[in-house]
Amino acid sequence: MAKVTCDMSMSLDGYIAGPRDDIKQPLGECGERLHEWVYTLESWRRLHGLKGGEINSDSELLEESIKSTGAVVMGRRMFSLGERYWGHNPPFHNPVFILTHESRSSLMKEGGTTYTFFTGKIEEAIKQAKEAAQDKNVSIAGGANVLQQCLERHLVDELQIHLVPVLLGNGRKLFEHSAQRGIELRPERVVASPSVTHIRYRIIK
Amino acid sequence: MAKVTCDMSMSLDGYIAGPRDDIKQPLGECGERLHEWVYTLESWRRLHGLKGGEINSDSELLEESIKSTGAVVMGRRMFSLGERYWGHNPPFHNPVFILTHESRSSLMKEGGTTYTFFTGKIEEAIKQAKEAAQDKNVSIAGGANVLQQCLERHLVDELQIHLVPVLLGNGRKLFEHSAQRGIELRPERVVASPSVTHIRYRIIK
Repeated sequence: MAKVTCDMSMSLDGYIAGPRDDIKQPLGECGERLHEWVYTLESWRRLHGLKGGEINSDSELLEESIKSTGAVVMGRRMFSLGERYWGHNPPFHNPVFILTHESRSSLMKEGGTTYTFFTGKIEEAIKQAKEAAQDKNVSIAGGANVLQQCLERHLVDELQIHLVPVLLGNGRKLFEHSAQRGIELRPERVVASPSVTHIRYRIIK
Repeated sequence: MAKVTCDMSMSLDGYIAGPRDDIKQPLGECGERLHEWVYTLESWRRLHGLKGGEINSDSELLEESIKSTGAVVMGRRMFSLGERYWGHNPPFHNPVFILTHESRSSLMKEGGTTYTFFTGKIEEAIKQAKEAAQDKNVSIAGGANVLQQCLERHLVDELQIHLVPVLLGNGRKLFEHSAQRGIELRPERVVASPSVTHIRYRIIK
């Protein structure tokens, strides 16, 4: 049975993007620092059609997420910011369901990525993504508001935070509503690498 | 040589107290949840003159902080909120330097705690605390604004975050100024207990 998971790189002060994120700088000011830990990894580079890279506890952990994912759900804003950057052969290699208010035809990309635009309820998008993922997991790619909505609707099984030791001071927060206050999390696994602390939480429903 | 350290229990969304913290509820609404992990520990109970309690990785880690501390620095607001609760035999058992704008005579309490009110610069308070601590560490007890000021002035050597798997949604944030953006942290040790993730960062100056 597919689980619904989410992997997020977050600064120690709770941001997943720096301030003024837009199409020119999708991660906002200084937001690149949140993802520096992945760019050198073999598993990340392979996903992006690049050769070489480091094999270590970080790359193994990323590989684990890649292998277990069978479908992706993301918000319209994240898609708009990332589409050009991801290009003709996007790094998802899976069906991607994009939550939007405007109907639009599906797009088929190289390497197994399809973009399906979904105008219904978020619960229905997760359900369709689960069917597409078959026995693999549905990964919530973001943005923060999509994760927040999924948490509030108790749709998430696992949340893995990659806690990056930087302070951004401002930007886009991963959590920002007191509606999430009742959500119980239980740390299930912690992997401490020299650069990032990976904490996988089970969401208690 | 004494190090300047800080131990903070922080929610996954970055708060060290819930909303509406005041003298009646010093930790704010739901803020008690950030400290539930310590109340049952043998080392915490002993510090508070209580018997019994659990001995586990959490209690050992707390014991380590207790043993290495020789002086404490805190803000005036934290002192005002906590003084009544800490009582005649406060849990510090060390000289405590309170940063304030109003001169006031020192107070000598039972069990080795002295309260000294310091109206000078924060750098001077840290210097005096270092002298008092001799070869032990100076611990910044809080509040968040005192830690922030110390970080911005590069006065902190180690910051240990006890990352508590709760979402408060609102309250008093540990980090809240972009002035901290340039501060570099390096994770030095991670202890994963069933309830809390303890991450000790070295502050790179």
